[in-house]
Amino acid sequence: MTTPTTYILTVTCPAATGIVAAITGFLAAQQCYITEMAQYDDEMTQKFFCRIMFRPANTSSDAIDNIRQQFAVVAQQFTLSWLITNAARPTRVMLMVSKADHCLVDLLYRKHKGDLNMQVVCVVSNHTELRSVVEREGIRFICLPVDKTNKADQEARMLEIVAEMQAELVVLARYMQILSNDTCRKLEGMCINIHHSFLPGFKGARPYHQAYDRGVKLIGATAHYVTSDLDEGPIIEQSVERVDHTYLPDDLAALGRDLENSALAKAVRLHIERRVFVDGNKTVVFK
Amino acid sequence: MTTPTTYILTVTCPAATGIVAAITGFLAAQQCYITEMAQYDDEMTQKFFCRIMFRPANTSSDAIDNIRQQFAVVAQQFTLSWLITNAARPTRVMLMVSKADHCLVDLLYRKHKGDLNMQVVCVVSNHTELRSVVEREGIRFICLPVDKTNKADQEARMLEIVAEMQAELVVLARYMQILSNDTCRKLEGMCINIHHSFLPGFKGARPYHQAYDRGVKLIGATAHYVTSDLDEGPIIEQSVERVDHTYLPDDLAALGRDLENSALAKAVRLHIERRVFVDGNKTVVFK
Amino acid sequence: MTTPTTYILTVTCPAATGIVAAITGFLAAQQCYITEMAQYDDEMTQKFFCRIMFRPANTSSDAIDNIRQQFAVVAQQFTLSWLITNAARPTRVMLMVSKADHCLVDLLYRKHKGDLNMQVVCVVSNHTELRSVVEREGIRFICLPVDKTNKADQEARMLEIVAEMQAELVVLARYMQILSNDTCRKLEGMCINIHHSFLPGFKGARPYHQAYDRGVKLIGATAHYVTSDLDEGPIIEQSVERVDHTYLPDDLAALGRDLENSALAKAVRLHIERRVFVDGNKTVVFK
Amino acid sequence: MTTPTTYILTVTCPAATGIVAAITGFLAAQQCYITEMAQYDDEMTQKFFCRIMFRPANTSSDAIDNIRQQFAVVAQQFTLSWLITNAARPTRVMLMVSKADHCLVDLLYRKHKGDLNMQVVCVVSNHTELRSVVEREGIRFICLPVDKTNKADQEARMLEIVAEMQAELVVLARYMQILSNDTCRKLEGMCINIHHSFLPGFKGARPYHQAYDRGVKLIGATAHYVTSDLDEGPIIEQSVERVDHTYLPDDLAALGRDLENSALAKAVRLHIERRVFVDGNKTVVFK
Repeated sequence: MTTPTTYILTVTCPAATGIVAAITGFLAAQQCYITEMAQYDDEMTQKFFCRIMFRPANTSSDAIDNIRQQFAVVAQQFTLSWLITNAARPTRVMLMVSKADHCLVDLLYRKHKGDLNMQVVCVVSNHTELRSVVEREGIRFICLPVDKTNKADQEARMLEIVAEMQAELVVLARYMQILSNDTCRKLEGMCINIHHSFLPGFKGARPYHQAYDRGVKLIGATAHYVTSDLDEGPIIEQSVERVDHTYLPDDLAALGRDLENSALAKAVRLHIERRVFVDGNKTVVFK
Repeated sequence: MTTPTTYILTVTCPAATGIVAAITGFLAAQQCYITEMAQYDDEMTQKFFCRIMFRPANTSSDAIDNIRQQFAVVAQQFTLSWLITNAARPTRVMLMVSKADHCLVDLLYRKHKGDLNMQVVCVVSNHTELRSVVEREGIRFICLPVDKTNKADQEARMLEIVAEMQAELVVLARYMQILSNDTCRKLEGMCINIHHSFLPGFKGARPYHQAYDRGVKLIGATAHYVTSDLDEGPIIEQSVERVDHTYLPDDLAALGRDLENSALAKAVRLHIERRVFVDGNKTVVFK
Repeated sequence: MTTPTTYILTVTCPAATGIVAAITGFLAAQQCYITEMAQYDDEMTQKFFCRIMFRPANTSSDAIDNIRQQFAVVAQQFTLSWLITNAARPTRVMLMVSKADHCLVDLLYRKHKGDLNMQVVCVVSNHTELRSVVEREGIRFICLPVDKTNKADQEARMLEIVAEMQAELVVLARYMQILSNDTCRKLEGMCINIHHSFLPGFKGARPYHQAYDRGVKLIGATAHYVTSDLDEGPIIEQSVERVDHTYLPDDLAALGRDLENSALAKAVRLHIERRVFVDGNKTVVFK
Repeated sequence: MTTPTTYILTVTCPAATGIVAAITGFLAAQQCYITEMAQYDDEMTQKFFCRIMFRPANTSSDAIDNIRQQFAVVAQQFTLSWLITNAARPTRVMLMVSKADHCLVDLLYRKHKGDLNMQVVCVVSNHTELRSVVEREGIRFICLPVDKTNKADQEARMLEIVAEMQAELVVLARYMQILSNDTCRKLEGMCINIHHSFLPGFKGARPYHQAYDRGVKLIGATAHYVTSDLDEGPIIEQSVERVDHTYLPDDLAALGRDLENSALAKAVRLHIERRVFVDGNKTVVFK
């Protein structure tokens, strides 16, 4: 829950003594009131993660600019990676889809309801099937068909669109093309994929058939950041549901759609609220 | 919930028309009252599975023997695999353990409480650490230490014990030796293992370290029948729990113990109540 | 999963010996192949419940009519309440809504995807807000505004619409008017309501505020049949999710919408597939 | 996960600007390294909650004493309620039981495994049945039989034992006597009860029979702090599991025991790790 005057400060850096004191001392000196704070030190990777929600006494844009400029000095001292964002400002999101519409429909519905504080700047697809669903919501639909010859070109075009639209987050909402390693690297930390399986259970194609063949009693879905290593990016959220012998592959796929919706929507929300930090090939999530 | 006069009939056979009618017609003719019945036809494997709980009007052992003899005639007609057991009779169970005691303690506690209608005929271990825990419950403890030279001999001895003790079910309650293919085949359908992972997620050793390294947000445990293909036997039950970045491998292992207890106890109970049928490399479970 | 030639027989009656044999013997004699069967005897209420999926050798409508006529004779003998329905025929469903759209949108989406084998014959609302959502799907929208003076008339009109449209199921998809006892009785067993709480936890108004005030760590939703006793009808399905102290009432309500969708969709599907039997103020559900 | 040199600082106070800065500035000045920190401001109650794990550079007892003395000055300025404890020091816990042993056995097992960092200073019971279970673990068992005439005296004696044994936490592990309002007040914030129901669902006696009669599809258990208002104290943890129509009251009770174990053990662990803060009639839990 946020009000227009709440800001989010996120910080990552190598672990060291005095960081929290330096940050919170700075905010106190700047007349900023801390409403929620979470901090975690990963002792394995020796990294520090911190998320602070605060309210400045003076919320003019000049005052905020000044806070940012002043904080840059603190940041340099501790080699902090940091960001200060207005909690009320919608995140600019680009969705990518193919033919399956369930994740798209679910994300648009949640945005509409106010569950997801985002602006969908455009929807990119390698197919045309979902054009009308997108355009009837007044959102721009861009088709970038992919074949064997044009894949690199279309990915380059996609990256241009990300830049042009100033998208801050790319969501692969059942986009069925594998992005090149190079593109993945360029979108690192800003691109979420939904994997239609309970990773690391069933990688690769047709996971619900794999689940059926293996006779599992639970199926799941996994939302993760995209990295160059396919299906191996840092996991943000997983969902799971109980099944039994009466579920044929189609039934598993139907239930799987619910699980994919649920995991993806939660991951997008956590990201938008700046609650997720990448920590090597894992995530730190402040809920 | 059963009373002394309830019997369980389980039937497996190739799918065909008229089987249910033949079976239930037989029971009606024998003055047997059906209290609960579940049937399933796997259309993929063309197999028929049925579990019937019934109460004979006459419960003398002669009458039951007579029912069994008469039913053999019906069974021959449809090439049924079948079993009629007294629901109240405890199943004779042999437990196998190594050093970890959580599954052992949990199973003994549940037996004691009446949750598991079984008689633990003995506990076999390749170590001596759990002797006192077992013997203070008045249960026979047999140590069969395993080294590189005697593994085949000890497995043979173990199978002898199964026969001598007339064990109907062998439970690998965190028994850390891999049984030979031959032994697995001999125990097919009557040996349950608990795998300390959410199969097929993390096969092999140290699954909680694997889970930690992968940064999963859910961990689980899997109870399955033992087959010659390690960790690939038919799954009976899986349990799962949510975790986050603060769980170090030891925390995952501690939570994992609860999940293993839960999945194993449920699987043993389902087996004892004759609710589980092996169907290829899957199970049909009538809950 | 069904094919056009599969039928569902559901039976309820007072418990007695020989019923299963009589039913299955009849089906065998009629050359009907049983693919799935579930039966349960409630020993408390002395009632018998049975659901059988079968495939007749001859699927002409004459043959089916003949089976129904013949079965009526068996039924009379055991005073069975019974129904034989074509599993592939969509159930005729009337939805009732007010202003909240999440359950409506979710049900229509699932129907569209083929998860719910139903035909939405019309949507009735006491408000006009959801007209466009309904009509753009090509479904008839009927507004029956309710005020203090016309409530009985509008309910009578609603019951007429049920009859005219031959609706077999009425789903109160967040319909915010309380139906009269008399109307509830007339819709007994064919009207499902979603209660926005984990019954019997928080009855009455504003359950998410109640949940917040009580500081619960889990919230839920309950789908149940409507009876004259408000919020006390037989429960079909409940869903639940973990929450913590950071959830304000609005957050609880947002999560609650997901839980309501999930519980209602599952209940509707179970009902449509004839898996639910009312047993006093409880349900027997064959999953 | 803690090491011997980690300390936990917990703070509660009225919300105000600069508190976090003052606390973390103090710790930095004292050469204390913060490893984990969580903070939450309840905007409804205007209360501030904070939990910090830190490692002092100097871990001599003199140095720690000095930190405590110095912090008292900071605390006075902001009217903080606070505590600094050595994370490795076991919490002194007194268990209270009646005849049911499952929570007792489970807590002792988890303590033994190292999941619960506590020392069980004694077990108090109004019955003698569990004496041997307790004493064979080398723990003192004290029987305080309760009848109509001596209840107040025995509660007074119980409070004396709490004082004598320097118990920091009292766990009602299925203790079946209702404590007087006065005793509850004296144990406020240091006494955890397990309620054998999914509160607020089924208050009062025989909750599993109530659950059966109501036909619920989910049952649960609730661990909460004891207050003078029976079953209404702040909830710490709730557990839940799916059930169906085949569960008779005894089956529900058996499953309920698992749920009670799970919820109680989690609540005790959260309390021992100082992760729970009472906030009016709710709790803030930093997981």
